[in-house]
Amino acid sequence: MTQAPSPTDGAVIAIDWGTTNRRAWRIEADGTASAMVRDGSGVLAMAADDYAPALAGLRDRLGDLPVIAAGMVGSTRGWREAPYVPAPADLPALAAAALRIDDARATIVPGVSLLADTRADVMRGEEIQVLGAIAGGLAPADALFCQPGTHNKWIACADRHVVDVATVMTGELFALLKGHGILAGMLDGPVADGAAFRDGLARGAGASDLGTALFGVRAAVLLGRRAPEEAAAYASGVLIGSDIGARDVTAGPVHLLADGALADLYRTGIESLGGATIPVDATAAFLAGIHALRRFL
Amino acid sequence: MTQAPSPTDGAVIAIDWGTTNRRAWRIEADGTASAMVRDGSGVLAMAADDYAPALAGLRDRLGDLPVIAAGMVGSTRGWREAPYVPAPADLPALAAAALRIDDARATIVPGVSLLADTRADVMRGEEIQVLGAIAGGLAPADALFCQPGTHNKWIACADRHVVDVATVMTGELFALLKGHGILAGMLDGPVADGAAFRDGLARGAGASDLGTALFGVRAAVLLGRRAPEEAAAYASGVLIGSDIGARDVTAGPVHLLADGALADLYRTGIESLGGATIPVDATAAFLAGIHALRRFL
Repeated sequence: MTQAPSPTDGAVIAIDWGTTNRRAWRIEADGTASAMVRDGSGVLAMAADDYAPALAGLRDRLGDLPVIAAGMVGSTRGWREAPYVPAPADLPALAAAALRIDDARATIVPGVSLLADTRADVMRGEEIQVLGAIAGGLAPADALFCQPGTHNKWIACADRHVVDVATVMTGELFALLKGHGILAGMLDGPVADGAAFRDGLARGAGASDLGTALFGVRAAVLLGRRAPEEAAAYASGVLIGSDIGARDVTAGPVHLLADGALADLYRTGIESLGGATIPVDATAAFLAGIHALRRFL
Repeated sequence: MTQAPSPTDGAVIAIDWGTTNRRAWRIEADGTASAMVRDGSGVLAMAADDYAPALAGLRDRLGDLPVIAAGMVGSTRGWREAPYVPAPADLPALAAAALRIDDARATIVPGVSLLADTRADVMRGEEIQVLGAIAGGLAPADALFCQPGTHNKWIACADRHVVDVATVMTGELFALLKGHGILAGMLDGPVADGAAFRDGLARGAGASDLGTALFGVRAAVLLGRRAPEEAAAYASGVLIGSDIGARDVTAGPVHLLADGALADLYRTGIESLGGATIPVDATAAFLAGIHALRRFL
């Protein structure tokens, strides 16, 4: 058996392998991405025996190269478990704990965990984006990142280390309330910036009574204070306001790893609470993260 | 057509007519309850044409008497809408706004609404219980009530008026998280007092980051900080802690309109946050409320 090619030289295949989606790039030795494959082969769509042929398929398209994969592929629901690295964690620490699967010429990047006094949190995949953003000059070595989604992540970095993470179930709570329970049928209207969304932001920010604020969506409609078609924007504002209001967004800019409508709502919310945002291209950050990680593997 | 018998003299049928259940009592002229019917004929099980035969059926069993009904029967989803009385509201105000349906010899008690600066809330049925508890000597004229359930209600009374209400979606949020989303499958363990429940209470009380505390349930299990079978009790503690922690429970005793396991959890939570509880029999309070209301009809 020959020595597996090192992922530190030459081109590699970098995979952002999430729960429901997969994106793979060929990254050249100089860090530029020259080809990309995107599909719905997230880990929930994969059986244990599917990974080897899946990698073979990617190599057919992107080159017979070493693979570096990050995201849920390294979770207990993924291919092989790459145990979390406790925060504070930098790229050398991630590289040292990376899971090498020699016969597949693949490396799985571990996630990062936080165990604080009363808080526990985890991430898989975002660590490469935020440390890559810093390594690639897209953000400073000390930066607060926000990555909105079903589970929004706030990630604080200091001196090129992930030092804190807080995951907020904002998108999931909205979806649960929209789909089930007493607010179902009330949240089908548009969610966009406007007076209702901003009223919701103000109600949710800093509130210790989120469960009451959410019931208030229904009461406000019943009592004619809020038009039914505004209820979804207001409820979204309450949840996003609660999410943002639990951080100090005035201490420095928030680096927003997102674009599109959801990023717009978070930018509005952060600005309405006195903060400022800097957009960061999440794909560029991921590629920079994998390229920078290679030096330490 | 003869004058309908007044509900202010003689016996009446009192109905606590909720969303999924119905309880009806014959109340004698002196206020004592002499018979009771309980079934699943809540308003969601009723079509518009079902109310007249339903009342006839109750009269067959409890006597051919005037009816006084409270609860969701007066909502837009019920029989006829009895518009909310704005807080502050006392029994004379409820009586003045009660909906008389003369041809059915029935009176529907209105609910109470709250429109404060940034809060909107409503109740239907609980107003009779809390004002009845006061009228019947089960609670003082100034009292804070708590009625745990799918939607927990905190109701503040002053000088025999409902002056404030806050509905908290505590039970619904637990059920949504247990049934759907990323915590589903993690919350099937027992929910009872113990170290995990109390850890959750401490985490949730006063927290402005409920959406993060809930994700932390999953992270704590993944990281081995919390045993999987403790997750449900911990999550329940987080939600109930958030619920209770948003009130000032140290200003006076909390009158708890509940019994059973859920009441035990709230009592534990209130006491752990420095408060005290007084149990109030919800049925006795309802009957006292209907009996006291009759004087003003």
